[in-house]
Amino acid sequence: MIAVLKEGTTPQQRENLCEWFKSMGLEVNVSEGKYHCIIGLIGNTSEIDTGLLESLSIIESVTRISDPFKKANRKFHSENTVVDICGRKIGGGNFEIIAGPCAVESEEQLTSIAKSVKASGAGLLRGGAFKPRTSPYDFQGMHKEGIDLLLKAKKETGLPIVTEIMNFNDIELFEEVDVLQIGARNMQNFELLKEVGKTNKPILLKRGLANTLKELLMSAEYIMASGNENVILCERGIRTIETYTRNTLDLSAVPALHELSHLPVVVDPSHSTGISRLVGSMAAASAAAGADGLIIEVHNNPECALCDGAQSLTPEQFDAVAKTVRKIREAMS
Amino acid sequence: MIAVLKEGTTPQQRENLCEWFKSMGLEVNVSEGKYHCIIGLIGNTSEIDTGLLESLSIIESVTRISDPFKKANRKFHSENTVVDICGRKIGGGNFEIIAGPCAVESEEQLTSIAKSVKASGAGLLRGGAFKPRTSPYDFQGMHKEGIDLLLKAKKETGLPIVTEIMNFNDIELFEEVDVLQIGARNMQNFELLKEVGKTNKPILLKRGLANTLKELLMSAEYIMASGNENVILCERGIRTIETYTRNTLDLSAVPALHELSHLPVVVDPSHSTGISRLVGSMAAASAAAGADGLIIEVHNNPECALCDGAQSLTPEQFDAVAKTVRKIREAMS
Amino acid sequence: MIAVLKEGTTPQQRENLCEWFKSMGLEVNVSEGKYHCIIGLIGNTSEIDTGLLESLSIIESVTRISDPFKKANRKFHSENTVVDICGRKIGGGNFEIIAGPCAVESEEQLTSIAKSVKASGAGLLRGGAFKPRTSPYDFQGMHKEGIDLLLKAKKETGLPIVTEIMNFNDIELFEEVDVLQIGARNMQNFELLKEVGKTNKPILLKRGLANTLKELLMSAEYIMASGNENVILCERGIRTIETYTRNTLDLSAVPALHELSHLPVVVDPSHSTGISRLVGSMAAASAAAGADGLIIEVHNNPECALCDGAQSLTPEQFDAVAKTVRKIREAMS
Amino acid sequence: MIAVLKEGTTPQQRENLCEWFKSMGLEVNVSEGKYHCIIGLIGNTSEIDTGLLESLSIIESVTRISDPFKKANRKFHSENTVVDICGRKIGGGNFEIIAGPCAVESEEQLTSIAKSVKASGAGLLRGGAFKPRTSPYDFQGMHKEGIDLLLKAKKETGLPIVTEIMNFNDIELFEEVDVLQIGARNMQNFELLKEVGKTNKPILLKRGLANTLKELLMSAEYIMASGNENVILCERGIRTIETYTRNTLDLSAVPALHELSHLPVVVDPSHSTGISRLVGSMAAASAAAGADGLIIEVHNNPECALCDGAQSLTPEQFDAVAKTVRKIREAMS
Repeated sequence: MIAVLKEGTTPQQRENLCEWFKSMGLEVNVSEGKYHCIIGLIGNTSEIDTGLLESLSIIESVTRISDPFKKANRKFHSENTVVDICGRKIGGGNFEIIAGPCAVESEEQLTSIAKSVKASGAGLLRGGAFKPRTSPYDFQGMHKEGIDLLLKAKKETGLPIVTEIMNFNDIELFEEVDVLQIGARNMQNFELLKEVGKTNKPILLKRGLANTLKELLMSAEYIMASGNENVILCERGIRTIETYTRNTLDLSAVPALHELSHLPVVVDPSHSTGISRLVGSMAAASAAAGADGLIIEVHNNPECALCDGAQSLTPEQFDAVAKTVRKIREAMS
Repeated sequence: MIAVLKEGTTPQQRENLCEWFKSMGLEVNVSEGKYHCIIGLIGNTSEIDTGLLESLSIIESVTRISDPFKKANRKFHSENTVVDICGRKIGGGNFEIIAGPCAVESEEQLTSIAKSVKASGAGLLRGGAFKPRTSPYDFQGMHKEGIDLLLKAKKETGLPIVTEIMNFNDIELFEEVDVLQIGARNMQNFELLKEVGKTNKPILLKRGLANTLKELLMSAEYIMASGNENVILCERGIRTIETYTRNTLDLSAVPALHELSHLPVVVDPSHSTGISRLVGSMAAASAAAGADGLIIEVHNNPECALCDGAQSLTPEQFDAVAKTVRKIREAMS
Repeated sequence: MIAVLKEGTTPQQRENLCEWFKSMGLEVNVSEGKYHCIIGLIGNTSEIDTGLLESLSIIESVTRISDPFKKANRKFHSENTVVDICGRKIGGGNFEIIAGPCAVESEEQLTSIAKSVKASGAGLLRGGAFKPRTSPYDFQGMHKEGIDLLLKAKKETGLPIVTEIMNFNDIELFEEVDVLQIGARNMQNFELLKEVGKTNKPILLKRGLANTLKELLMSAEYIMASGNENVILCERGIRTIETYTRNTLDLSAVPALHELSHLPVVVDPSHSTGISRLVGSMAAASAAAGADGLIIEVHNNPECALCDGAQSLTPEQFDAVAKTVRKIREAMS
Repeated sequence: MIAVLKEGTTPQQRENLCEWFKSMGLEVNVSEGKYHCIIGLIGNTSEIDTGLLESLSIIESVTRISDPFKKANRKFHSENTVVDICGRKIGGGNFEIIAGPCAVESEEQLTSIAKSVKASGAGLLRGGAFKPRTSPYDFQGMHKEGIDLLLKAKKETGLPIVTEIMNFNDIELFEEVDVLQIGARNMQNFELLKEVGKTNKPILLKRGLANTLKELLMSAEYIMASGNENVILCERGIRTIETYTRNTLDLSAVPALHELSHLPVVVDPSHSTGISRLVGSMAAASAAAGADGLIIEVHNNPECALCDGAQSLTPEQFDAVAKTVRKIREAMS
């Protein structure tokens, strides 16, 4: 960490500051210039509150050299994390497609989709039982009944299930769920992150609509610091000035997150684009970019989907997408 | 609501769609063109799921003419809502300044600040007992102890208190708190919104960092639809391409929210700019823009604030700001 | 085009408006509701100024159903445009890689890079002779001398050349240049667009840092409306809230532009990410997304590049990237 | 300037780098840590190309302590610049309102507006003769005829005139124009900036839609480095995620630019909001924020404005706005 002192800082003030740094166990290097004095800090600075430091009247600026996420950081954990979900592996060269409807609607719907996506090569089943909706008047999901249907579909197909949790008070309902999803709007719901960090279930953590990659990693750090290191990061698009697509898929997040962290990265081409016609290209591009998996919405009757149908593929379209993705992964191997 | 059908829609498909609309109690007007057929829908369309409609293969586009927030909507409630907090009124020409430290740190700190901001004209006391922090390693607040100190300061000064709730399971601790604050990161934590909507306490709802004004109103609608209509909207800056300030204060939100809604609007010039030197100008500008109140961070020793000190005013600076704000409000009256 | 009238519009006002629309040769369909009256307009509305219409006091909103770009629009020109540059074809299934240094620096540099990128499969040579720089004190390019070096490199390798024009008064210098590049900062320099539209050279039009896809197409329309239909669109990243990468590459722009327009789309993974380590993944992802070409920065000595070196590949790295791109294109064919 | 070297940099590499810095006349301070070596550079670093430095393989990061704009920088020029336009002063406590129609349309229109805005207290007349429009099919301005009408209006009212220049080849037409406006889309049209920098006319430089304050100052620096120091900065809104207003007015830019620079700052509440109903509040807020002036669109018949009418005030509305602004400025003095 580097702190630059303001012009006019007295030697006494500087001395006091350096003493304080030393009292925190840091090594302190002072480099004095004509206009500025630069203090380099060596040691474990991850617990220093940058905001606090910047608030001191003698400080011009503070720059971190190392990132404050330690458990998620590639630097301190060079090997790729592989998350194992009932034998399906994500990360470290292992790739899985998670597929299924946006919202669970009925047994027929779910079983039919589950069977077809399994036949096309999907390794996990997704489906929303609790749905975060902008409007209180929109369909909010089937709740307990939805989870029961997911568990039935799992029994029938063997596919592990991924579903979103919005309120930790519902955790009992998720006992047999395989992967807990944290939605984009809850990426900085720190209370929820701490709670799921106390479970031993793999967590699919979606990037918030206006959050940076480092903030995503800090949220992963919340989960990991609570004891659960099975975190799968998910790029699902950010809000930008473009309005043709619902959000802007940031595919450079895939290699960037792989640089910064050892955690696996999956991509959601459905929610990011919001347009089913673009899902195939973006799934292919994600595989080429080195993603560790995909999460794709599939519906057996998109015209009647209770939510987000505009972005869902039909089972036939999904089958074609899965084939292309496989070809690309083979070409790159 | 206007739905435009795609070229090639058959008369039968159109007929079916119109029947479905009619079954929902809507009046249907069809206007047929050479390339497009336009369907105008009259009636209560607020419960129609636009996403669902857009997902139909025969639909080109769907446009709402009325906004889907009904309880927060100025159109259906032309009089300004005035929120009364122990006699302090916000909205409808009534203006209050909420001031206090970012985080509660000690009894001495809080009492001292509370007394000085009261003397300068603040009507309510703010202070964080639960702090949402990007990093799990940063100071998270004093929790119960912090709320106890707020209540002591209230007793001593008579100032009602405003403090953030992050987890509804903590609600018992907030029993004597006057205003519950929902932070920007929780603006779309719909579970929390529903819960605070079941209380009868005034809610200070902060705009999310990447949320539009209409989304802010939809979040207010969540609270109101749960039964609590005492909502105060708070503009606190959005994330943009500018990096000099921490966020970009969107002051046009003040007159825009007043157009769209009857709810009061307060502005937070501290968090939005993140720079104490800019707080005064932005407080003055907020008053001139017609805000119903301000929420300002004040610290008696900014150099030692445990968080966000860089944006806090000293009591002397706050006093000057409060004076300017008063002058501007008088000039405009 | 759909215009919605405000509640309270008198029949006479409506009549006048409709007469005006009819005088512009449009078919007018009126659909009257209880609160709103909806007017559907059929015909050539591309020359109607939406801003003007919205400014009328009786208008609630105006929505275009068709986009105002006609020459660039896929709807009126379903076949893919193929741009031919000395026999190299871009678009309609044809793919080329444009490679070369950010800025032309010397004959040795340019010839050496040109030979190596040609050997690796690049079809065109890029290099900046005029460089747009944020600071007036940064290196601005070699100007005429730079173009002369590009022409020498072309003679030696046979690679057609692509280079940026910033001021149309310099056009004589570009007489033998094969492709004129319009940089991101000039995407809405309408005067320059009109001028290059009067030449018969292919134009590589880069998307602005905060411009939507439709605005990019409107800028292409400026060039095409001036008579030059040889436009190649270039996605090069937009400015977003992410700061790890220099800009955010919007890869969904590739299939989206292909939907909206018949013009070819190339991707610049170098400027968008600003980090050479990410260029390979993004080049591969671009190919998988269906791009018609790539424009990649290559430098023989990245450590000494006079500008933008951090995003340049070495010739060896470029060779590997070109191989992967070929494999992906083969896998998808 | 601070450069941090990567772990693993050899002493020889470090030595070479330091020698290079010294050869550029800089004082070099080395602070060596366990993992990183920090180099502080003292002296005139404004001509160092940061991009070049970052591209070196041994560099981890580079941070500027001083900004690379020198002529526009408050640090090196602490007194406020006052721009004098035929006796009207902007900056350093002097405030003027520039008012007039978006586009010049006719002699009657312009003279009538000019007289009424003068009567309401405007000090300068604005009006577009050359209009940058997203679509090539929209009205592009009256060009020479428009400027002639502006000059007539100036003769009749005595108001100096402000109008936009888009192409420096037209400069002869602007001979008698008092202030040259550079539009937002041309803020980084560096060729145009250099050319207007060679004139001796005051320049009104508008902030680009996605440009930071420091980039705005770098563009001012282009003009100043060419010899013209009469630059007026103009905040006119940036593109953000909000869609209710056309752009988001960034009012904290006013005090922030005053901190960073000695140049005067005016605000355009018309283009930034795009909604005439919000112009009054934002004009008032701008005055309260400390702006040195305003530029406001006024039209005598907003319903027929050929462009941007939705954001224009009527003369009566403008008169009320000007009165409020005066009251606020008095209250603050």
